[in-house]
Amino acid sequence: MFTMEQPSPAVAEAPPRVLAAQLPEHIGQTVRVAGWLHRLRELKSVAFLVVRDRTGQAQAVIAESAVREIVAELPEESIVEVIGTATANTAAPGGVELTAPTVRVLSQAERPPFDLYRPALRAGLATMLDHAPVSLRHPRRKAALRIGAAAIAGFAGSLSGEGFTRVQTPKLVGTATESGSSVFGVDYFGRRAFLAQSPQFYKQTMVGVFERVFEIGPVFRAEPHDTVRHLAEYTSLDAELGFIDDYRDVAEVCVGTIRAMLANVAESAEAELSELDVTLPVVPERVPHIHFTDALAMAAEATGEDVTGVNDLSPAHERLIGAWALAEHGSDLVVVSGYPMSKRPFYTAPDPARPEYSDSFDVLFRGTELVTGGRRLHLYGDYVAAIEARGESAEAYSGYLEAFRYGMPPHGGFAIGLERFVAQLTGASNIREVTAFPRDLHRLTP
Amino acid sequence: MFTMEQPSPAVAEAPPRVLAAQLPEHIGQTVRVAGWLHRLRELKSVAFLVVRDRTGQAQAVIAESAVREIVAELPEESIVEVIGTATANTAAPGGVELTAPTVRVLSQAERPPFDLYRPALRAGLATMLDHAPVSLRHPRRKAALRIGAAAIAGFAGSLSGEGFTRVQTPKLVGTATESGSSVFGVDYFGRRAFLAQSPQFYKQTMVGVFERVFEIGPVFRAEPHDTVRHLAEYTSLDAELGFIDDYRDVAEVCVGTIRAMLANVAESAEAELSELDVTLPVVPERVPHIHFTDALAMAAEATGEDVTGVNDLSPAHERLIGAWALAEHGSDLVVVSGYPMSKRPFYTAPDPARPEYSDSFDVLFRGTELVTGGRRLHLYGDYVAAIEARGESAEAYSGYLEAFRYGMPPHGGFAIGLERFVAQLTGASNIREVTAFPRDLHRLTP
Repeated sequence: MFTMEQPSPAVAEAPPRVLAAQLPEHIGQTVRVAGWLHRLRELKSVAFLVVRDRTGQAQAVIAESAVREIVAELPEESIVEVIGTATANTAAPGGVELTAPTVRVLSQAERPPFDLYRPALRAGLATMLDHAPVSLRHPRRKAALRIGAAAIAGFAGSLSGEGFTRVQTPKLVGTATESGSSVFGVDYFGRRAFLAQSPQFYKQTMVGVFERVFEIGPVFRAEPHDTVRHLAEYTSLDAELGFIDDYRDVAEVCVGTIRAMLANVAESAEAELSELDVTLPVVPERVPHIHFTDALAMAAEATGEDVTGVNDLSPAHERLIGAWALAEHGSDLVVVSGYPMSKRPFYTAPDPARPEYSDSFDVLFRGTELVTGGRRLHLYGDYVAAIEARGESAEAYSGYLEAFRYGMPPHGGFAIGLERFVAQLTGASNIREVTAFPRDLHRLTP
Repeated sequence: MFTMEQPSPAVAEAPPRVLAAQLPEHIGQTVRVAGWLHRLRELKSVAFLVVRDRTGQAQAVIAESAVREIVAELPEESIVEVIGTATANTAAPGGVELTAPTVRVLSQAERPPFDLYRPALRAGLATMLDHAPVSLRHPRRKAALRIGAAAIAGFAGSLSGEGFTRVQTPKLVGTATESGSSVFGVDYFGRRAFLAQSPQFYKQTMVGVFERVFEIGPVFRAEPHDTVRHLAEYTSLDAELGFIDDYRDVAEVCVGTIRAMLANVAESAEAELSELDVTLPVVPERVPHIHFTDALAMAAEATGEDVTGVNDLSPAHERLIGAWALAEHGSDLVVVSGYPMSKRPFYTAPDPARPEYSDSFDVLFRGTELVTGGRRLHLYGDYVAAIEARGESAEAYSGYLEAFRYGMPPHGGFAIGLERFVAQLTGASNIREVTAFPRDLHRLTP
């Protein structure tokens, strides 16, 4: 019934597997490497077989005709095991190659829909995404995901070190109250439930428990946008902290966290940065802050436009502010504070001195918004007033508001979209390029 | 419009905040502590005010009547800021108390639905869950969540160290194919989507990319169970690795990962273990393995029952095997291998020597199943055969099967339910006690 190969007695006595990156430590020894057939080049006298494993690539030089027959016409991506002598050769990748090898095919692949051994995938985005299980094996696509993994580890490690507790809050929620944008509905045991658009309410609630919390998890946005920056499901890196004075305390933690994420990427994804030709951003000791009104005035002066009544920054404005931050302050990051209250969600705290402006901020990264954060309301009465000002009943928010009934400190937080962070860092033109299995208006598979 | 307090000039010059746990370093100094009013005890001559922050509790002794008036009748959980002299007193919690304090109320709470200062919450489970934003502040409930956070960090840290890459795979999926149990349906831009029951298909696919992957994320089960062990949404700790020989390679990583999780809990949640009187399990260097058939025979001998035709272990059998592992091998963990294929999902690989039994395992923790894992099929033809044997069409699985078309190594993995792990570790009688906001047949809020 099953066509699985049985390990042969010979294999049972085979040397333990050596990873491609470890080969230089085994020169002169008989070693076993195993992985994907990355590329086969058949020359007249020899064949070069490049095996890819999780650490890199290893080349085997096959001269013996019996072995050449095994690999002849073998499609790339087949799983192979190669036993041979690790031999120094400065012309080989990594300075080592396997000579006099034997080859065993563990799983024969079909011919892949595109060549993974080329420096860049020769496929359109749609084809790449349709064949994600294969295209993700390309070094450039892998690299973006590895950078994301390193960014997450930096996020979690840095916040844990600052006394934040990791929490998991529910993605199935009973009400669709957080914001005006669309949510996905779920059939929940015959009732209506929704997918959480963010852990906002719950992370605030958990400030009441742990003071400082973070969460790494999926969020769901049923926004019918078809842009290069939006996904229907993405990974949100959320943090929230209590006992703050104003937005500056939040922005300080936020910038420190981004710095730690970048440091961890630099440390643990060096090869991946190089694969994607990424230059890490400059984040100086002091990242510039600019108030929304000053940012808008600066942009108006540069473009000559009339910004009377304008209550948000356009992408063009953001690019100008980003350029200013780099030119004047040597920083790829800039904190823009004090966006008008009308543009912020209802739980946002106003600036006590200028209540039409919020005590919140965005972080622009190379001129594009990366983070939104700020101080939140923390008094029960303020929530009731803010919700009623929207024409809604506080009753619909009773689960959320319970935290504020029973004592909540001044607090605030921020959220970083992981995929957007990676896209901006790597200069991807479409967020889907750095997302393993993107979900959008049109795409639900693979 | 807003009732927010403004920081007063006096506060702006207040000393920086000191956390409760740091007080012993500040004896003799004027310090500021801030947190929740954990308990107020009013005696004739003085009042004792205990403030709770993220590191512990600090006591202030109030003699001055003007200050006593501020706190008189102040409900517990109100947010207070106390400035006073840190004074050594062996009778005080932590050996320090604040004397001659001033108190500022940052947010006055309503009277909580139960007393958080008592050693155990005097509320039924339903009340506790209905008021989760408050009940989670109790030291015992907090402790369980902190233990969970430490377990996650141990899981991620250990696997990262073993060359595993963290991945995020979609929770919105296009087909409800993984198993026979129920899934939640989602309205997805006018189409039907489903919530992922597990990252199984995707983590296998990602073995094709990174060889070794792990994921920490929510999974969704629309099973109408109303038991103390089931949730409709929980956190799954998943790992999957390529280039294995058999289930033993997976079980070895699994046991090593559990050991690392426990070690990290011991290291970073020591106070929480003590709060919950938890004795960490014994995991010896060599954890015993027993084959399903031997486990069943052993259980039959102990109970005298006829197990002819029995193809699973009952909870009573599991308890017997757990007791045997502890008595004979000094281990709180035991690996049971070779469950009948009929009890395992279709992607499970059979034992080549006895194909009616699977090359898979469960880990029992103190006599209760904690982990399910094993080797998977890895050849495309085997998947097609297994799916067709279920009377289904391989076409419905095309996204999943693409990974196998294009070369997949022998591989396997395992999944640990975080909340179940914490419940078993802490001896909670109901998994909801260790879940911040449980979701089940009846509960969707808060």
